[in-house]
Amino acid sequence: MVPHLVTALKGPLLDLERGFLDATPRIERWFRLAWQEHTPPFYCSTDLRNAGFKLAPVDTNLFPASFNNLSADVMPLAVQAAMAAIDKYCPDARNLLLIVEKDARSASYLDHLKRLAAIMRQTGLNVRFGSLDPALREPQQVVFSDGQQLLVEPLVRGARRIGLADFDPCSILLNDDLSSAIPDALRGLHEQVVLPPVHAGWAVRRKTNHFTAYREVARKFAKAFDIDPWLIDPLFASCGAVDLGKRAGEDCLATNVDAILRKTRSKYREYGVRAAPFVIVKADAGTHGVAIMTVKDAKQMRGMDSEYRARMSVGADGRAVTEMIVQEGVPTFETINESWAEPVVCMIDRYVVGGFYRVHAGRDKDENLNAPGMHFVPLPFAASCHVPDSSALPENASNRFYAYGVVARLALLAASIELERTDPDQSLYG
Amino acid sequence: MVPHLVTALKGPLLDLERGFLDATPRIERWFRLAWQEHTPPFYCSTDLRNAGFKLAPVDTNLFPASFNNLSADVMPLAVQAAMAAIDKYCPDARNLLLIVEKDARSASYLDHLKRLAAIMRQTGLNVRFGSLDPALREPQQVVFSDGQQLLVEPLVRGARRIGLADFDPCSILLNDDLSSAIPDALRGLHEQVVLPPVHAGWAVRRKTNHFTAYREVARKFAKAFDIDPWLIDPLFASCGAVDLGKRAGEDCLATNVDAILRKTRSKYREYGVRAAPFVIVKADAGTHGVAIMTVKDAKQMRGMDSEYRARMSVGADGRAVTEMIVQEGVPTFETINESWAEPVVCMIDRYVVGGFYRVHAGRDKDENLNAPGMHFVPLPFAASCHVPDSSALPENASNRFYAYGVVARLALLAASIELERTDPDQSLYG
Repeated sequence: MVPHLVTALKGPLLDLERGFLDATPRIERWFRLAWQEHTPPFYCSTDLRNAGFKLAPVDTNLFPASFNNLSADVMPLAVQAAMAAIDKYCPDARNLLLIVEKDARSASYLDHLKRLAAIMRQTGLNVRFGSLDPALREPQQVVFSDGQQLLVEPLVRGARRIGLADFDPCSILLNDDLSSAIPDALRGLHEQVVLPPVHAGWAVRRKTNHFTAYREVARKFAKAFDIDPWLIDPLFASCGAVDLGKRAGEDCLATNVDAILRKTRSKYREYGVRAAPFVIVKADAGTHGVAIMTVKDAKQMRGMDSEYRARMSVGADGRAVTEMIVQEGVPTFETINESWAEPVVCMIDRYVVGGFYRVHAGRDKDENLNAPGMHFVPLPFAASCHVPDSSALPENASNRFYAYGVVARLALLAASIELERTDPDQSLYG
Repeated sequence: MVPHLVTALKGPLLDLERGFLDATPRIERWFRLAWQEHTPPFYCSTDLRNAGFKLAPVDTNLFPASFNNLSADVMPLAVQAAMAAIDKYCPDARNLLLIVEKDARSASYLDHLKRLAAIMRQTGLNVRFGSLDPALREPQQVVFSDGQQLLVEPLVRGARRIGLADFDPCSILLNDDLSSAIPDALRGLHEQVVLPPVHAGWAVRRKTNHFTAYREVARKFAKAFDIDPWLIDPLFASCGAVDLGKRAGEDCLATNVDAILRKTRSKYREYGVRAAPFVIVKADAGTHGVAIMTVKDAKQMRGMDSEYRARMSVGADGRAVTEMIVQEGVPTFETINESWAEPVVCMIDRYVVGGFYRVHAGRDKDENLNAPGMHFVPLPFAASCHVPDSSALPENASNRFYAYGVVARLALLAASIELERTDPDQSLYG
């Protein structure tokens, strides 16, 4: 089905992957116990990097917009996971309001929405689409780039509830990542469940919070399974306020870049890795792969020309980048058709439901692949994330995916903890 | 993958199937609400019959022994469903004791056990195998008919718990259907979860209880979705004590056969069905397809020769048949390679995880197919049971399976209610 996949997965399993396989029942129990303490976000996708010597998440998306890239085979898994989730939040729900991205008009986003809606309908919900766009006053057939249409309706806000005309939902599924601000329309909805909660939006969320939580999760997991946490955790550091346009924060960035490069170099020596380390400098809030740079020398942070600085200062939604994270770069060692590729794992509730490869023919193994020109290859992820074949040969590709499912779920767990800590209503966590 | 399957599914969807498809979100919500009231048994398989004019369950097995017949593709679904179940019963469980059938030695049963154990291991449990066989005193490598082996260990019973040597399980998964009696070893285990509960065993269970509960479920469902309950429910009647060897109960059987045949004939006229009705007379307790006869005329109940009566008097496990159920026969209209076939749907917790066809080249469409000489064809059931394509053409085979998943889950719900009603500890349902 995905014949070229094999090229992405050649070679024996890493010791790490082998270790995960051998420890499967213990790992699954570890997660089972963890989910007694923490509630996973409704859905999530995690970008992973497999460097051959380490396997780590580099970005965790709480508003996934790529379910169209999943293989159709995994739909039953997605439905079953969504059933479990809805049962938890809103067991007698009849209606679901799906709030879609304000500006997205691509055919692929429409395909994603259709698939997401099909999953939710199959859990026993009537699904309709709303938008936070204040300019939307009447129901509108949104026309996508390939000519397909979707009826998107204006929100109707009451004193305590939100809905659409003649449509009172029990739960509201956010697929707009709230980059600019938490809209008033979504505040004070104590009778309805908003999934994920609004403070998961990029107006509030920070990558440093996520990777701080991830670092703790990774250390705990590494201790339980006797591995070096660095093998699953990218180093990072952050600078407070940064304004590259005004050259504010450059020193802090340069210092952090230097520190992360030094630490990474030392780890590379420890593990006999011959590559040159690099770091990724990116906005601490925001998505869509904008404002991301690959840095191999701290000097680069000072020598940027004004055009480049301007480009790095604008994040998703056109918002100014005011905080940045410096993250250890994890090169990918996976290729599909001679293009570098990275796996993306999709989860609903606490379940891995599938995954795909993000592939970019024009980018290098140490660059961000989430950029125009990328394409996607669905993976037969599901079976192997759940039921690896520990008796199979080490080079059995499907066994590699089990490890991907484990690390992705560690990132999911970190997101749960991150959302608890950043929840404005701390009384919920007694 | 299953090329000949198409022949089993030709022809447009029944009105019933079409109606189920159109009502999908409402049906799924109906089940979601039902599962708030009732707890499904841990696992279950249901034999269905699709007559073209009606679609009904004819047997519901609470100790499924056929997971080996499922397609490997559905393993992730089974794991995910089992995770949800274990989370409910025993969230911090580390060990699972799987009690296997005492006498089964077939290669297919071993394959079933391996698959069941693989599913449970993947939920984070250490799995070991025990047996209720009192003759087993030491751990034994049980050799199956194809030479494969499995380590089966004697049970170690404490005052309040049961386990194996150096193995204290939180939950005990019964795969022995307790045909002869509820063993003392399984009584009074208040600290451990026995799945399913021991009163699901055939020593206690009666088909009439199941089909009484199913009749109520079917009526409720039929009312909610405005269909004739007969379209999903086989008529039945039972006689109290029957001893065919001594010709006791023959009159009652003959009367009931006659009544069911008359009612069925009247329904056939109502729906323009030209076939001759028949009934199935079988033991009210027990499994393995023994002691089952197809009857087309009440006179047959009186004219049986002594050899035939003797054969009908012995059920599974060699136990005497003392109660019988008279059930409307539902012919199958499905064939695979010119042999009659019936679908079997497998469920874990409240989820359909897959299915297969039971096929018998030597039996007719109005006969029991669960007999030596049968074989099995896995179905790509899962996707379609969860995500039918309501926009597809009516003859799209996969859409037919959605209806199978619905009717199978009605039988699952009936089993839940049956187990509540027959639970010796009624205080649980106050």
